[in-house]
Amino acid sequence: MHRTKIKIVEDAFDANNTIARANREDFDRGGVTVVNMMSAPGAGKTTLLERVVKDLGDVRVGVLEGDIQGSLDADRLASLHVPVTQINTDPGFGGECHLDANMVRSAIPSLPLDDLDLVVIENVGNLVCPAEFKVGEDSRVMVTSVTEGEDKPLKYPLMFRTCELVLVNKVDLLPHLDFDLERLLHNIDKVNPGVERMLVSARTGEGIEAWRDWLTRVVARAGAPV
Amino acid sequence: MHRTKIKIVEDAFDANNTIARANREDFDRGGVTVVNMMSAPGAGKTTLLERVVKDLGDVRVGVLEGDIQGSLDADRLASLHVPVTQINTDPGFGGECHLDANMVRSAIPSLPLDDLDLVVIENVGNLVCPAEFKVGEDSRVMVTSVTEGEDKPLKYPLMFRTCELVLVNKVDLLPHLDFDLERLLHNIDKVNPGVERMLVSARTGEGIEAWRDWLTRVVARAGAPV
Repeated sequence: MHRTKIKIVEDAFDANNTIARANREDFDRGGVTVVNMMSAPGAGKTTLLERVVKDLGDVRVGVLEGDIQGSLDADRLASLHVPVTQINTDPGFGGECHLDANMVRSAIPSLPLDDLDLVVIENVGNLVCPAEFKVGEDSRVMVTSVTEGEDKPLKYPLMFRTCELVLVNKVDLLPHLDFDLERLLHNIDKVNPGVERMLVSARTGEGIEAWRDWLTRVVARAGAPV
Repeated sequence: MHRTKIKIVEDAFDANNTIARANREDFDRGGVTVVNMMSAPGAGKTTLLERVVKDLGDVRVGVLEGDIQGSLDADRLASLHVPVTQINTDPGFGGECHLDANMVRSAIPSLPLDDLDLVVIENVGNLVCPAEFKVGEDSRVMVTSVTEGEDKPLKYPLMFRTCELVLVNKVDLLPHLDFDLERLLHNIDKVNPGVERMLVSARTGEGIEAWRDWLTRVVARAGAPV
């Protein structure tokens, strides 16, 4: 029984990886850099995106918005006149807890890839499952907010280990928390030594310029026309 | 292909429910009330438990601690001299994102059920998957912290809908947030009209007495010897 379960799970990941590669090829053909953005629920992904999408210079950005149901976040971003496609995850394998490559694939035709340089995929708020599924992205960014505690890298290591940038959000609240920032940074280094990290506050704007510049750099690095 | 996927998922839930019933029978035989506690990562489940486990009067409590890996939370609770069993979820079906009935089943022999009145199961920090898996509990409690935003009930409806009590934690931070508490409570009522909710702060102790009393009442209601 246990072997059967493992086989089913392995098959699902194999199928996912195959589709992720097809997505990657489509994105490459369109000259589009893709960033997969992940975090726990309420860490501030949407607000961090709202803060930068109008301010990326020549980089033309679109957003793929993953949610179990509803379009609250997509509506917020669409109001900024950015191309946004909503994916609701209800019909996915194993439920609704992440975006998989096939869900992203189904959304690609609705994005004007030829007119974009960057697609940000806002994944479902979850520190576990999204990290297990490649969707065809170039880079992974994760957001951890200081209100979540210092232990999260140790408890959700895969998420912290598979990302290229950690945004430490809500630092404006540090004076009001019993929170040891050094310990968080130390724990991040334990699971992903030397990974780039930025202290930001979507609320006050602290660190937002560095986050915007990082996105611009990722696009430039991919050789897309900026 | 899609039908096959649905079939696999349905079979997994059926198997889970069968095992959950077996757990329930074991708990009943031991005269134990079981509370399944769920939340997003970092919402404060462990601290809310630390606040009450030494203060439950005649109610003898044990804890089942679910984490992907490590025993950080179990160590915190064990230091309070409460029987704690750690479950690491790595080997579970579909990964590591929740406790299922079989993981709980494997831990039951390590709990002294005959000497307990209450078992609190601290689930993996995740607002999606844990809600889909019954583990043999009497009641579900979820914790939502005010730093996560007002929209969470609308975005993670199953979690809010299947619980009996919502603990709204970290209310000590309200003066420092752009947060509309009325809107959160309104959104909770939208997905689970009239569900009991308590405003609490694990940090300052606000509302902790009500939370402790709720646990005592749940045990008394089940007719366990208190």
